Amino acid sequence: MNANKPTLHTVLSPALLHLYDIDDAIVVIIDVLRATSTIATALYNGASCIMPVDSVEKCIAVGRSVNGITAGERDGKVIEGLQHGNSPFEYGRDFIEHKTLVLTTTNGTRLLYMALEKGAKTIITGAFANISSVVDYLTSRQQNVILACAAWKNRVNIEDTLFAGAVIDKVKDHFQIHCDSSGMAHSLYKDGAQDLYAFIKSKNASHYMRLSAYGLEKDIQHCLIPDTANVLPLYKDGKLCIG
Amino acid sequence: MNANKPTLHTVLSPALLHLYDIDDAIVVIIDVLRATSTIATALYNGASCIMPVDSVEKCIAVGRSVNGITAGERDGKVIEGLQHGNSPFEYGRDFIEHKTLVLTTTNGTRLLYMALEKGAKTIITGAFANISSVVDYLTSRQQNVILACAAWKNRVNIEDTLFAGAVIDKVKDHFQIHCDSSGMAHSLYKDGAQDLYAFIKSKNASHYMRLSAYGLEKDIQHCLIPDTANVLPLYKDGKLCIG
Repeated sequence: MNANKPTLHTVLSPALLHLYDIDDAIVVIIDVLRATSTIATALYNGASCIMPVDSVEKCIAVGRSVNGITAGERDGKVIEGLQHGNSPFEYGRDFIEHKTLVLTTTNGTRLLYMALEKGAKTIITGAFANISSVVDYLTSRQQNVILACAAWKNRVNIEDTLFAGAVIDKVKDHFQIHCDSSGMAHSLYKDGAQDLYAFIKSKNASHYMRLSAYGLEKDIQHCLIPDTANVLPLYKDGKLCIG
Repeated sequence: MNANKPTLHTVLSPALLHLYDIDDAIVVIIDVLRATSTIATALYNGASCIMPVDSVEKCIAVGRSVNGITAGERDGKVIEGLQHGNSPFEYGRDFIEHKTLVLTTTNGTRLLYMALEKGAKTIITGAFANISSVVDYLTSRQQNVILACAAWKNRVNIEDTLFAGAVIDKVKDHFQIHCDSSGMAHSLYKDGAQDLYAFIKSKNASHYMRLSAYGLEKDIQHCLIPDTANVLPLYKDGKLCIG
């Protein structure tokens, strides 16, 4: 019945990415708290592009060579030697318009590089901040989809899975979904959809506890609001630009 | 508040086991369709013990040396050279009482060996067939717990996650659970608890499709019924015996 529809799979952790065929699929990199929320926000606010890099050293070197803003975090904290952190609130239009952001993060940018190494040809980034753009893109192409959750140091996390579930809830009629992880993500989203923030708190989510210990509840709440920065970050030649 | 309670984590795939400290924990090996359902059933029906082995060659060799029944599957099918398959219906009392079952399976027995290699000292197996015994054991010890899902060739599966969620639903007040995978498993279970079989079918679960293609719906339905074989398989010195 669904034989002509493309497939959709959800990968709950970077440690499971190798199990999936990604080279003919659209790969959606998901790191809700906070890399892919921040990427959407910076582009929405006029950044020329985001250059994701996979180490602090590269971030500093690339930032110097392109005269960009260097930013990133490790373990949820700003890194010594970089100029900025990984909060969407740091990237208002006054600050970021027409600038290049060079970004390195614990999970999200690392996963993007893993997908590239595995041969992914089409990579976008997704978060609640730009969910409608992601959904529109996925449903307008006749192509297989991998929803790739950045997780936390390979441990499955609730916020990225929730976002995968939210996407599935909107696109499911367009795809063949024979993927247990996708079914689980969708169940999770339906359980939490009414109040995502309360849901994450009630689940004692590991990342919530980590970030709220740094006083970042405001970031968490913001990163769960749909379409605050509704653009499509598309990766090409080392850069994420509006697709 | 919960500082004195032991911790509980859920590992959704063998490929994630290395992320967790398992050497001081009770590790529950979960392979609902069908290894750990069959293990409980065979012990409940009087098998002397189950000897899990990680290869077909070992299964044949050990089976010969202990005069045991050799059994197992790869990809859901009986293996050439072994005497029996991996269905609980094969292990009625008339057949298995006082015998030793030497068992090798695609996912469950492999995960048990991974846990041993990682230093696990206390290993039990769990399935709906023996859920009450598992719950009683976990709540009666003051020890950390790892619910380890066998999954399907490392891809997360719904039936093992559902069982983890069912256990969490019953033991959650006894543990500190700061583990997103556990929260997800619990949500999934709550979503499906009313009719697990219909839930798995509705989710197009990959394993359901694989087994039902072999005409094994009856196995699936049976493996989702609680306490059909309510004993505790405890691993010691190469054998699973009633603990």
